[in-house]
Amino acid sequence: MPDDTVILAETPTVNDIDAARARLDGVAVRTPLLESTLLNDRLGRRVLIKAECLQRGGAFKFRGAYNTLASLPDDVRARGVVAFSSGNHAQGVALAARLFDVPAVIIMPSNAPQMKIENTRAYGAEVRLYDRETEDREAIGRALAQDRGLTLVKPYDQLTVIAGQGTIGAEIAEQARDAGADPAAVYMPCGGGGLSSGIATALSRDMADAKVVAVEPAAFDDTARSMAAGCIESVLPGSKSICDALLSPTPGHVTFDVFNRLGVQVTTVSDDDALTAMHTAFETLKVVAEPGGAVALAAILCGHAETIGVRADAPLVAVISGGNVDAAMFARAMA
Amino acid sequence: MPDDTVILAETPTVNDIDAARARLDGVAVRTPLLESTLLNDRLGRRVLIKAECLQRGGAFKFRGAYNTLASLPDDVRARGVVAFSSGNHAQGVALAARLFDVPAVIIMPSNAPQMKIENTRAYGAEVRLYDRETEDREAIGRALAQDRGLTLVKPYDQLTVIAGQGTIGAEIAEQARDAGADPAAVYMPCGGGGLSSGIATALSRDMADAKVVAVEPAAFDDTARSMAAGCIESVLPGSKSICDALLSPTPGHVTFDVFNRLGVQVTTVSDDDALTAMHTAFETLKVVAEPGGAVALAAILCGHAETIGVRADAPLVAVISGGNVDAAMFARAMA
Repeated sequence: MPDDTVILAETPTVNDIDAARARLDGVAVRTPLLESTLLNDRLGRRVLIKAECLQRGGAFKFRGAYNTLASLPDDVRARGVVAFSSGNHAQGVALAARLFDVPAVIIMPSNAPQMKIENTRAYGAEVRLYDRETEDREAIGRALAQDRGLTLVKPYDQLTVIAGQGTIGAEIAEQARDAGADPAAVYMPCGGGGLSSGIATALSRDMADAKVVAVEPAAFDDTARSMAAGCIESVLPGSKSICDALLSPTPGHVTFDVFNRLGVQVTTVSDDDALTAMHTAFETLKVVAEPGGAVALAAILCGHAETIGVRADAPLVAVISGGNVDAAMFARAMA
Repeated sequence: MPDDTVILAETPTVNDIDAARARLDGVAVRTPLLESTLLNDRLGRRVLIKAECLQRGGAFKFRGAYNTLASLPDDVRARGVVAFSSGNHAQGVALAARLFDVPAVIIMPSNAPQMKIENTRAYGAEVRLYDRETEDREAIGRALAQDRGLTLVKPYDQLTVIAGQGTIGAEIAEQARDAGADPAAVYMPCGGGGLSSGIATALSRDMADAKVVAVEPAAFDDTARSMAAGCIESVLPGSKSICDALLSPTPGHVTFDVFNRLGVQVTTVSDDDALTAMHTAFETLKVVAEPGGAVALAAILCGHAETIGVRADAPLVAVISGGNVDAAMFARAMA
C-alpha cells in the first residue's frame, strides 16, 4: 500500500494535472461549457457553465477517482479500493473500479440520497452504510483497508484526486478561449476543497488573472471560517443542509494549504439560494443540478461578483459539479 | 421575396447539409452525444443521446432557423422574418433574428407553454397569439409576410430548414464513430418531419446502414398514418397531447417525400411513455427533456428496436430534441 503520510504531504502541481489529463483522455467526458442567452441577458454579463453533471457518474468525482486508480501499481489496484462518501465520490470510485475490473467497497452515510446509494450498488460496488451522527467514516475506511488490503481513495485530500478534478480547470481555460471569453472569476462548489484546489492549481497557469471562488452552503462554512481564522476549523455540531455533496466537517490539509497559497476566495449561499439556482439551471441551461452542485451558480445569481470588485460586464464561469438528485428534491426546486 | 412554390419543390441533399454546417460553425452548439452506464445496463445495449436540449434556444430548431436566415439575401433578411410555431421554432427564429439584428414576428398558439411565449419575447421578437382551434396560423403568417415584407421561415417544409436540422445527423455519425459505436438505428421526435428528414438525408451518406425511426405522439400520428396510406393524411380532429412541440396536423410535402424516398420508419408512443422518458433522462443523463423532446428515447425504452429486428445488443441513438418545458409539467414527470 502507498504510504499515506507521504501522499498527504504532497501538493499537486500543473504537471500532475497534465498527467491526469493524459490518463482521462477518452475515458472522462470533456463536459461542455454551456451558455444561455436568456441567462446572460438577465445578469448583464456572460456566464459560462461547466456542466460536470454531464460527467460519467453524474458528477466531477469520476475524474479524481479514475486518475487515482490509474495511478496505482497494477498489483495494488487489483486488490481493490475503498472510499467513504455521501454519494458522488462513491459513484465515481465505483465506476472507475468497474472500468478497471477491480473490487470497490464504499462507505456511505445511511441518510445519503437513495439514488446515490442505489447507483453506487448498480455500478457493482459493495456498499457499507454508517450512521453520520455516531460513527467515524474515516476509521471504518482505514479498518477495511487494512483487513482486506484495499487502497483508500480519499474524497479530496489526496494528490491524484485533486489533480483529476483539476483537469476541469484546464478544460475551462481552453473552452472559454474557444468561446471568445476572458472570465474575471471562476466559481465552484466546495465541500472538502478538492475540486477548488484542483481548478485553482490549473488556473494559476492557464487563466492566471481570474479570481477563484469556492462556494459553501451557509451551514457548512468550515472552509470560510478556516480561511478567516488562519487555521483549520470545523463546522458547528448539528449543522444541516440539503447540499448533501458538500457536508465535509473541515477542509483537508492539502486543500487548505492550496487555498491559502493560491488565494482562493470563499463565500457561502443558503439552501434556498441553491434551490433557486437549480431552477435557473433547469430553465435556462436544461441541465439537472443537485443542491450542492448548484451553489456556484447560486453565488453568481446572488451578485457575489459585485462584492469582490469584478467589473459588472465581465464574463464569469460557474461549475455545476453534479446532478445526482432524487426526484422529490428536484420537485422542490420546481415549486 | 423568394418564390415559395420553388422552395417547396426542392428536396435537400447532403450538399445542402454541408453548406448548413459551414454556416452554423461557431454559431450553433455542437451538442454532446451523451451516454449513461446505468441506462446502458438497464437496456442491455449502448444508447447514445444527442442532447439538442443543450442547443441555443433550448431545442434543435435554432439550426434550421439560423441556416435559413443566413441563406437569405442581405436586403431580404434586413426586412425581417415571420414564423408560426408552438414555441421551439419560435425561439429558434427569434434568436437567429436577434443575432442578425433583424425584426422577427412570431405567431404562437395562445395555449403554448408560458415559458416558450415568454422566452420568444425575451429574445426580442414580436409575438402574435392565435387560437389553435379557430384560426389558421399559415394564413396569418402569409398575410403578415405580405403586409410588412417579411420572409416566412417555415417550421419544417423548407429546404434550408431541413438542411439545418440535418447537421444533427452529420454530427451524430462523427460522434458515434468517436465513441466507438456503430448504431443500428437512430430515433428522433417527429412533428412535421423536418428533423427526421434532415437527419435521414445526412445519414443516407454518413451512416447508411442505420435505420432511421421517426417517433410521434400516439394522438398525433399523422405521419404514421400518411406513410401507411401512401398519401398525406391529417390527425383526427380534437386530438390532444402534452407533446406541444409535435402537434403538426400533417406531414409536410417535402418531408413526406423524403420519408418515402429514404425509407424512414415511423412509430408512436403515449404521453405517459414521454413522461417516463423525461424521468429517465433526468435520472440517468442529467438533462431536461420536454415531453415532445423525449419521445425518441421513449420509443427505445418501450422496446421498439426489438420489433424492427435490430440485434438485441446493437447500439442505438436517440435525439432529445428540446428541453423547453414549464416547471409544472416537469414536476409531473418527477412524480
